[in-house]
Amino acid sequence: MKATLYEGNKTFSVIEKEIAPPLAGEVRIKVAFCGVCGTDVHIYHGAMDKRIQIPQSIGHEMSGEIDALGEGVHGFSIGEKVVVRPLDNRAEKPSDKGYSHICKDLKFIGIDSPGAMQEYWNVPAFTLHKLPDHIDMQLAALIEPLAVACHDIRMAKLESGEKVVVLGGGPIGLLVAMVARDKGGDVIISEVNETRIALAESLGFTVVNPTKTDLVRFVETRNGASIADVVFEVSGAQPALDVMTQLSGIRGRIVMVAIHAQPRQVDLFQFFWKELQLIGARVYEKEDYEESIQLITQSKLPFEKLITRIEPLENIQKVFETIAGNPSGMKYLLNCQS
Amino acid sequence: MKATLYEGNKTFSVIEKEIAPPLAGEVRIKVAFCGVCGTDVHIYHGAMDKRIQIPQSIGHEMSGEIDALGEGVHGFSIGEKVVVRPLDNRAEKPSDKGYSHICKDLKFIGIDSPGAMQEYWNVPAFTLHKLPDHIDMQLAALIEPLAVACHDIRMAKLESGEKVVVLGGGPIGLLVAMVARDKGGDVIISEVNETRIALAESLGFTVVNPTKTDLVRFVETRNGASIADVVFEVSGAQPALDVMTQLSGIRGRIVMVAIHAQPRQVDLFQFFWKELQLIGARVYEKEDYEESIQLITQSKLPFEKLITRIEPLENIQKVFETIAGNPSGMKYLLNCQS
Ligand SMILES: NC(=O)c1ccc[n+]([C@@H]2O[C@H](COP(=O)([O-])OP(=O)(O)OC[C@H]3O[C@@H](n4cnc5c(N)ncnc54)[C@H](O)[C@@H]3O)[C@@H](O)[C@H]2O)c1
Ligand SMILES: NC(=O)c1ccc[n+]([C@@H]2O[C@H](COP(=O)([O-])OP(=O)(O)OC[C@H]3O[C@@H](n4cnc5c(N)ncnc54)[C@H](O)[C@@H]3O)[C@@H](O)[C@H]2O)c1
Ligand SMILES: [Zn+2]
Ligand SMILES: [Zn+2]
Repeated sequence: MKATLYEGNKTFSVIEKEIAPPLAGEVRIKVAFCGVCGTDVHIYHGAMDKRIQIPQSIGHEMSGEIDALGEGVHGFSIGEKVVVRPLDNRAEKPSDKGYSHICKDLKFIGIDSPGAMQEYWNVPAFTLHKLPDHIDMQLAALIEPLAVACHDIRMAKLESGEKVVVLGGGPIGLLVAMVARDKGGDVIISEVNETRIALAESLGFTVVNPTKTDLVRFVETRNGASIADVVFEVSGAQPALDVMTQLSGIRGRIVMVAIHAQPRQVDLFQFFWKELQLIGARVYEKEDYEESIQLITQSKLPFEKLITRIEPLENIQKVFETIAGNPSGMKYLLNCQS
Repeated sequence: MKATLYEGNKTFSVIEKEIAPPLAGEVRIKVAFCGVCGTDVHIYHGAMDKRIQIPQSIGHEMSGEIDALGEGVHGFSIGEKVVVRPLDNRAEKPSDKGYSHICKDLKFIGIDSPGAMQEYWNVPAFTLHKLPDHIDMQLAALIEPLAVACHDIRMAKLESGEKVVVLGGGPIGLLVAMVARDKGGDVIISEVNETRIALAESLGFTVVNPTKTDLVRFVETRNGASIADVVFEVSGAQPALDVMTQLSGIRGRIVMVAIHAQPRQVDLFQFFWKELQLIGARVYEKEDYEESIQLITQSKLPFEKLITRIEPLENIQKVFETIAGNPSGMKYLLNCQS
């Protein structure tokens, strides 16, 4: 079988190796497609070298089918289409209060253990979600990031008719916007990259470039004094933090999706004054995966527009170099069987 | 009648003036006691000179009895004991979503209009809450700040058995701690002032001085891996913001009670990582006042310990100078009838 390995130093290798049998409790998946996540790009840049066991296969945004069952695995059959929810919560403790998706000693499969950017992938059976047979396997590789968006919307307790601002129109921001609109939210996207702005506009969204237009005034003029009910921070940038509290109306909810590695300036006065809520959101729970699978299966929303390009697995190095050199693309998929 | 006026420049005057009849919809209150709030001290320091109509009577933490009824006021009678919920929400709009206590054009009585530091005080009848006849009128002057604490606890959705850390053991922090404990919370207070630490300890609280003891390690050792379920930020200080995210366990709630006038450094990564929530809380709603009145009436909790001193109204200048010169005292009351 073909596998790719992150070797450190912005380098992937492509190797041939033996297909390994699944251990007890595991299944072997024949991986169809695997998307490149922002986290994978961080890994490529060396930002997570302490956490990765170099050389290691990475990747977690995948679709595939069951190829072999390890000892003690029941309820699955060879050829069934599946996705993996890449959270290994076996070290969960009572102090995690039942929030197993964010338990203190959570291991993320594809980061803390080998990932999906290979022809065959062995994973614990408890991570699997079954897919309907007629699903599009390319779109199915979007189930993981879409589940992030479903989780964010659920954490926001978004209600139909609410005014939403999404700060950042990258893959996650755009998926959040799509799900929010599907739930009846009235969505404005803020994005600084012109190519991404054009893509979001082609999906029918109202998009503001905050470096050209006064975003707060725009939202106030369009929505009136209530401004926004829910703001999603999905940009990771300080200027977005500066406006998020201004954009939120009374009792507004701000969902923190982006990862801010450093402490940031936040206008806490506005939290007090308008009784705002900041809601941290990380990955997804089982029900978010189910909702995401549902959305992809229905094929009602134009998720295919997010797929920038599909490349064979062996082109992994070129794909990461392309992404690193060009922040305009959205989702790149690796075809793990070609 | 005797009245006091903030004259600007850290100066109060004490004057004699005519007792004014209440206007239509108003009542005249014979003020019993009026506490000095942190906001009043801010006013004294000149920090709110733009908002105050100098010279103006200030004060809003009061108890009193009805002295006269204006035209059209029903349901009240002369001599009834009352407190004022000093929120004038008559400019409430639909965009305030029904949250009248924080409506955009809210006027705070005692800041945006004359306050209670006088013998008689005319206020709109809709601001009144009736008190039982046997209530202690000195303790009743604590109903307003205690309602702040009741609101904070309600916003936190605090449940019995939850682990609580209160950052800041000033009047508001101590009231938050007392209500939290009364609701079954397991409370630790963090405070830097030794006199206030001693007071909180005399009330039976576990108190940590974070300049002497590693607060995070202390809480971890005492509470275990779940650390704290709810953190109340009631200090207004950056060092407390630095620890609030560390002190919060998975899905912890942080209630922002303190007023931070400037943008502050916040570790947003922890909000993402542990799915923390930050909950802004401002003043109180009707039900918080009712709960506060209930708590004061029951006289089950030792609220009298918070009253540092009671001085006659005419000593107002001395009282503010004392407070400004000594951050150890807690609640000073003015006796408005002596
Ligand atoms: N919470 C989670 O579990 C989770 C999961 C996946 C990703 N993330 C995080 O979500 C964020 C978004 O992920 P992504 O893959 O879409 O990243 P991305 O970097 O592709 O998207 C961020 C977008 O924000 C835009 N942007 C930059 N500055 C801006 C500003 N001032 N105003 C508006 N837009 C601005 C960028 O042009 C970019 O398009 C990242 O921080 C990522 O780490 C979180
Ligand atoms: N949300 C509201 O509606 C509302 C209402 C009243 C007051 N407030 C605000 O609540 C805060 C507290 O009010 P207060 O009257 O008790 O004020 P206060 O200043 O008397 O109390 C703050 C306490 O925090 C302590 N402190 C300072 N640095 C600390 C640190 N690093 N760690 C722990 N403690 C520290 C101080 O010694 C002091 O005792 C203020 O910011 C006030 O403006 C808000
Ligand atoms: Zn991902
Ligand atoms: Zn007050």
